[in-house]
Order: sequence, then C-alpha cells, then structure tokens
Amino acid sequence: MNDKINPIRPTDNDARAIAAALLREARVASLGTVDPDTQGPAVSRIVVAHYGAGRVVTMISDLSLHTKALDKDPRCSLLIGEAGKGDPLAHPRMTVIANAVRLPPDAKADEEFAGRFLALHPKTRLYFGFTDFSFWRFDIVRVDLNGGFGKAYRLEPADLAQA
Amino acid sequence: MNDKINPIRPTDNDARAIAAALLREARVASLGTVDPDTQGPAVSRIVVAHYGAGRVVTMISDLSLHTKALDKDPRCSLLIGEAGKGDPLAHPRMTVIANAVRLPPDAKADEEFAGRFLALHPKTRLYFGFTDFSFWRFDIVRVDLNGGFGKAYRLEPADLAQA
Repeated sequence: MNDKINPIRPTDNDARAIAAALLREARVASLGTVDPDTQGPAVSRIVVAHYGAGRVVTMISDLSLHTKALDKDPRCSLLIGEAGKGDPLAHPRMTVIANAVRLPPDAKADEEFAGRFLALHPKTRLYFGFTDFSFWRFDIVRVDLNGGFGKAYRLEPADLAQA
Repeated sequence: MNDKINPIRPTDNDARAIAAALLREARVASLGTVDPDTQGPAVSRIVVAHYGAGRVVTMISDLSLHTKALDKDPRCSLLIGEAGKGDPLAHPRMTVIANAVRLPPDAKADEEFAGRFLALHPKTRLYFGFTDFSFWRFDIVRVDLNGGFGKAYRLEPADLAQA
C-alpha cells in the first residue's frame, strides 16, 4: 500500500548529527537476532558502549539465547535511543542493521578497551570475570533514523564517522 | 559453548505472574521484523496495548518500514519491559516471539476496541484518522522471560492466559 509515497528524507547534516548523538549516548539497546527455532526475529536487551567512529560493542554471555543466535547467524539489529518521558514515539531513535563479530578473549585483557566498557557499565564488573562472557562488536550495515513523527532518514556507515 | 548448561528454569507461578504484569503494563515495545533487504532482523519502536488474555495490539502506518516488513513476513518479536533506572539489566523484560496479523479496517470503527487504544495512547489521536494507519494483533508463539540476572524462563501462550 502507498508504495508510491517514499517517506525517507534526503540525508543531511542534521540527520547525521542526531544519529551521532544517539550512538555516543547509547548505554542500552534492543538487540534483534535470528531466532534459531523460528528463523524469525527475537528481541532482547543488552548494554552497549560506543568507542567512536560508529564502533558499538557489547559484552554478553554464551549462556544467553541472543549469543547462541549470533553464533549461528551474525545478522542482527540494534534499536538505539530510549523512549524517555511522554509520548514514546516523539523521541529520536534509530534502527541499526549490523553484523555481530565475537571479539577474541584478549579483548577482556585489554585494560583500555575493557576499562572503558566497565566504567560505563559498572554493574557488569559482577560477571566480567566469568568465562562465558565475551565482547562482541557490531559492524554497521545501515541505519534507519527516526527523528520523530515524519522524520525518517536512511544513513550509511560513512554518515556515522563523525560520531 | 557451554551447551551442557541449561540456564532456563522450570516455569512456575512466579514467572507467570511476572510475565502477566509485564504484558498488562506494556505501553511501548521494541518490534523485531524481518528486514526485506537483508532478511535479517530490524528493530524499531512501537506503542502497544494489552487487551487481556495475552492479546497485544498496535497501530502502525503502512508508510513505515516495519509495516512493509510485516506485510511480507509476519514473523516478529516484541521486547516488553522497560529498562528503567539504574542497571538496565536488573529490570524484568521478556522476548515475545509472535506472528503479526493485520486487522481489518473496521477495527478502527469499533468504538470500544479503538477507544481503549486511544485512551492508553492519546497522542495517537493525531494520526488515528489517517488511512495509512491500521491496527495489528500479535499472536504469541513463545515468551522468553528474563526476570533479572540468572532468572530465565520459557513460557507458552497458555502461561499468559491469566494476564
């Protein structure tokens, strides 16, 4: 229906700035993975950290369903931007389409890298040392930004370089 | 890894009660759909309403990417339960695996049905009358409940009947 109407606006610097701010401020995300049972989507909550230049990282357990799903199929999505107060659809948010990459165990031994994550998410110190927890990186394929009602943009990874 | 460890606890009445409360209180959800471009997941934000007995409904626009995705593939997922204050992973939430069903236009003419949605989401009155907006129902296939660190349960639709 309405296939003739394209609500996606041309990408401009305002859109790039909103997306960059959402990435920089991201602490939590809704992670979509390919459910091994249905091959359809499954959405769960993770904590994330942004390391600059569009690089988003999480630390998740091999025991969790989303990690098992990512081990089978790296295609995933992150919803970034919290609902906040008032009308939940009035707040900017973005759908990140990505591929997840498991980082090698030495990422946990990298003091600067791990320290940044732990500083942002102090509660994760409780299980940081557990061997079933690993860092993962999300390689961004595409971003669908929704800056509020009627403000839709599609961004490429290069648009996030300033983030 | 760790395939021998099953962290899913047996479903009990406490788990059913937590899931029922999350459904009853749900106002916003992260919706996972099958992205038509990548066939992988795409996660976006929607407003939802619970109509009892595990029946969850939304109203979305045909112009939006998630609606176009659901028209092509009804498999979807809802993350229900907000991150709240403090540690975002300390708050109960659940991954709902579902199939989305577009409701006929007369759902918008059903005063009791539509009125309930509009009462819960007064801001949606702004575009309720737009012809590109339709109601959709989510038929629940399975629920993965996370009641907090280490409290994982898998529930069937029957477990939500009390909701």
